[in-house]
Amino acid sequence: MTPGFTGGTLDRADALRHDAEALAAKLADARVLALDGLMPAVAADGQLAWIARDAVPADAELVLLGLDAQGRAHAAVLPAAGEEGTAPAMRSPALMAVLAALQPGEAATYATARSLLDWHARHRFCARCGATTHAFRAGWGRLCDACGTEHFPRVDPVVIMIAEHDGRALLGRGKGWPEGRYSALAGFLEPGESIEEAVAREIGEEAGVRVGQVRYVASQPWPFPSSLMIACVGVAEDDAITLDTNELEDAMWVPREMVRAVLAGEAGPFLPPPPYAIAHTLLTVWAAEPAAG
Amino acid sequence: MTPGFTGGTLDRADALRHDAEALAAKLADARVLALDGLMPAVAADGQLAWIARDAVPADAELVLLGLDAQGRAHAAVLPAAGEEGTAPAMRSPALMAVLAALQPGEAATYATARSLLDWHARHRFCARCGATTHAFRAGWGRLCDACGTEHFPRVDPVVIMIAEHDGRALLGRGKGWPEGRYSALAGFLEPGESIEEAVAREIGEEAGVRVGQVRYVASQPWPFPSSLMIACVGVAEDDAITLDTNELEDAMWVPREMVRAVLAGEAGPFLPPPPYAIAHTLLTVWAAEPAAG
Ligand SMILES: [Zn+2]
Ligand SMILES: [Zn+2]
Repeated sequence: MTPGFTGGTLDRADALRHDAEALAAKLADARVLALDGLMPAVAADGQLAWIARDAVPADAELVLLGLDAQGRAHAAVLPAAGEEGTAPAMRSPALMAVLAALQPGEAATYATARSLLDWHARHRFCARCGATTHAFRAGWGRLCDACGTEHFPRVDPVVIMIAEHDGRALLGRGKGWPEGRYSALAGFLEPGESIEEAVAREIGEEAGVRVGQVRYVASQPWPFPSSLMIACVGVAEDDAITLDTNELEDAMWVPREMVRAVLAGEAGPFLPPPPYAIAHTLLTVWAAEPAAG
Repeated sequence: MTPGFTGGTLDRADALRHDAEALAAKLADARVLALDGLMPAVAADGQLAWIARDAVPADAELVLLGLDAQGRAHAAVLPAAGEEGTAPAMRSPALMAVLAALQPGEAATYATARSLLDWHARHRFCARCGATTHAFRAGWGRLCDACGTEHFPRVDPVVIMIAEHDGRALLGRGKGWPEGRYSALAGFLEPGESIEEAVAREIGEEAGVRVGQVRYVASQPWPFPSSLMIACVGVAEDDAITLDTNELEDAMWVPREMVRAVLAGEAGPFLPPPPYAIAHTLLTVWAAEPAAG
């Protein structure tokens, strides 16, 4: 199954970012992503809505999203300094409803644009020297003329995982989650650790469960604001739970047949994560595995 | 097999980072990592060398690396503003020789410290507003008092992969690499793509090879300056190579038996990557697979 926010069809055309002349020619008649703030517009066919290059000001700064199969450039407008709005709008029910109306690959294109625009809005200054920076490489970086440092968009790796023990999956619920919702545990991977080490650490911190072997399942970009979700299963050494109540409100072990039933729409002890979340992919893959785990 | 820079034994003790009083008590008699710039000192037993808390100035800023099995804090000194040196020293033969003398888990502790110290040195200013920031959360973040933004250390995900076709692995060599060295291809994962998509894009960009299915193999932190290396195998749809000569000097398909022989120390058409690099882990795992791929 394909995780949410994957399957984009634009060619990122990395070489164009380094070729100012070819880039300018391509951008001259680019299709520009229609956005209201960070909210996308959706055409009737479930595609993102695009507007003509000359429908936006000539001095608008464009970030190149990529080329379509016909070689046409697709771009998004960088907000001007002072027009970034306030803190980045996170995932809202309204936005998720709009995204649900999109073809899957279109959500991937939107995710790329959203993460990039948000990064520019929150990184106008040089972290090294404090001077203002400007976009370069077709919007895929910012350059500080004062100290020469090149800055590139952040992608923050996040591990998201279940522990498994005796055919059951460890699910938790965070504070303030919708009533009944349980899902995989998750946390940011830190400097100096592997994916496998981050999975074991997070399960240990949040649920007090010790994990040995870890296996990778799937990944997904997550544009709130710019994470790489890395979904894994950790094999628990025992099933005693010690909750970190700063992180989790509850955690429980759920048998594979029950996870399968809930994903199939039956009533059960928890409400599953939404289909666009990789936790849904993770549970679906795990529920379909033979009973060995 | 265990990838390089993994297997650290310190407990990161996340809860301590949020508890100023308990943190101060622990740091009061912390063991402090002995560093000359970013170069570690190695004790005779292959352990990192540590010095007493009172051997460094009382006003030194400490970043908490974690607790050992006896609950003792281990820390590193943040360089003072203006004392960060110039650009981060990258991997040097001298440094790699020192690291080779360390026990494996010790290299992991060093990697964590190095990535964190380097991040602080290059992120003294707020990327959002340009003001100076200060370390908080035991050195695991920087806070901007001017605009309130919290900044956290970067970890940059990098995909590193071979393509496979008909029992052969695609290896490439970058410009300026040591004579004869070939290894896996690699590149930064970008906003809006999954691991699998980044693998396919990079192999396509660098070698012109189209990849279908992708499987994850292993991961490793890489402290030059702060990457997460994600090693994968991509199944190639055909074996025609179109080199991007800006990225690669050469690329070739190497049969599994030949990869196995070279890793075993026999002479062959290429010199393998060094053991601490995850490319070595990747090739070792792939070479040991049954011949199906
Ligand atoms: Zn600068
Ligand atoms: Zn600020």
